[in-house]
Amino acid sequence: MLDNPRSPRVRSVAKLAKKAARAETGAFLLEGPQAAREALTWRPELVVDLYATTHAFQKHDDVAALAKQADVRTEFVTEQVLDAMADTVTPQGFVAVCRTFPTSLDDIFGSSPRLIAVLEEVRDPGNAGTIIRAADSAGADAVVFSGHTVDLYNPKVVRSTTGSLFHLPVAVGATIEDVLARSRSASLHVIAADMAGDDLLVARTSGELALPTAWVFGNEAHGLSDAAVALVDRVITVPIYGHAESMNLATAASVCLYESAFAQRS
Amino acid sequence: MLDNPRSPRVRSVAKLAKKAARAETGAFLLEGPQAAREALTWRPELVVDLYATTHAFQKHDDVAALAKQADVRTEFVTEQVLDAMADTVTPQGFVAVCRTFPTSLDDIFGSSPRLIAVLEEVRDPGNAGTIIRAADSAGADAVVFSGHTVDLYNPKVVRSTTGSLFHLPVAVGATIEDVLARSRSASLHVIAADMAGDDLLVARTSGELALPTAWVFGNEAHGLSDAAVALVDRVITVPIYGHAESMNLATAASVCLYESAFAQRS
Repeated sequence: MLDNPRSPRVRSVAKLAKKAARAETGAFLLEGPQAAREALTWRPELVVDLYATTHAFQKHDDVAALAKQADVRTEFVTEQVLDAMADTVTPQGFVAVCRTFPTSLDDIFGSSPRLIAVLEEVRDPGNAGTIIRAADSAGADAVVFSGHTVDLYNPKVVRSTTGSLFHLPVAVGATIEDVLARSRSASLHVIAADMAGDDLLVARTSGELALPTAWVFGNEAHGLSDAAVALVDRVITVPIYGHAESMNLATAASVCLYESAFAQRS
Repeated sequence: MLDNPRSPRVRSVAKLAKKAARAETGAFLLEGPQAAREALTWRPELVVDLYATTHAFQKHDDVAALAKQADVRTEFVTEQVLDAMADTVTPQGFVAVCRTFPTSLDDIFGSSPRLIAVLEEVRDPGNAGTIIRAADSAGADAVVFSGHTVDLYNPKVVRSTTGSLFHLPVAVGATIEDVLARSRSASLHVIAADMAGDDLLVARTSGELALPTAWVFGNEAHGLSDAAVALVDRVITVPIYGHAESMNLATAASVCLYESAFAQRS
């Protein structure tokens, strides 16, 4: 039982909340039984260490069983140690250390995707994670974080994906130019979701949303870069029928991705 | 210039982050230049006090002009006082105290609404506020918070609406039974968005989404109550095509509201 919240080991886990420590170690943090369950179910080979309080381990015996099945030994810790390791206020008794798992653009474009979401310079971790979750729901084949988009392994991003991070490939680090060139080579219809584009309602009736599509979503404050807009086939705007000045990025992305998902299945 | 962060006046403003203080005074907090701008533009009569740092007041001179036009006197405060008043870490130089503005179900149902969003027991302030913003974007006529839904004037709800709170009527405090009975009397098609319902893609092609509609959204963890489900015309599910276990409530609600908005305009 680990009981010293100030031990070097506990500190090294806690440090994974910071990007520099993740880059150095190639590891990231998972918090809570739900995240542990998803990782152990979908990508058990990535789970390096699993820490749990005895209480949480008994309460969530399915997670305990999954860990055993994956041959991941659980290290028991006190509540204080768990709190010291976790980034969240309420880790609910589980923290896991996972290896990061880079996905290449080759992996994504080599498997004939029909729907992908590309983020350019998205900064809010909640938005980025929620878009991964929405892309997973909409049956997208992949997500790509380009440019200086928030770090995929940021604890808030990981948390907002609620496990979807393990369900579909997410590539990071490519330039937007490269991603859009690859999208076109893969015969994807490339649509930027941005202000001052064509109306999504019109696109919905034209049939074009049924094409294999890459949707491109930009920064929360500034939208897409001129470079990105110059490289897409189309700019489409989710119409605002009321008085809102703009839409939340993740909700707008969800509407766009589902319009494509529905059109491709109609 | 108010410069004592521990003065009774500063404390009484800060207390508005708590529900009890809001209920007692009938006032709530707005933070940041964007929120102040929206209130002063749309509902200037609600703004009781406006506090700003001299720096922010000069930087956002449009807010200063709106305040003057609305005959709202700006009280200058130090950064320390502003931080002590605000619930957020970065109030960006503005805090306003507003009167709460109850909307009755009579107001909402008396004006022949064609699209409304009803929340039952929604607990996460970010979800509740984001749904108000999405309802505003989708051109909904009103939002209703029923049952023990989070307090509309919670600072995180207010912040997540990014001003939409002032753009469309939001009623609070009614029971779900009453809201749904009123919806049916107003000839609205009442649709619950919940698990295990009919497929939204099927509903999309049947034409029913073009009807005047009340969408009902339930609690993040438990969904809708049996009482609510018994009172609706239809239960519809946003299909999950990937491996996600569930959708984020606000993104699911956005997809549903936009499907209705599009169908009503097609």
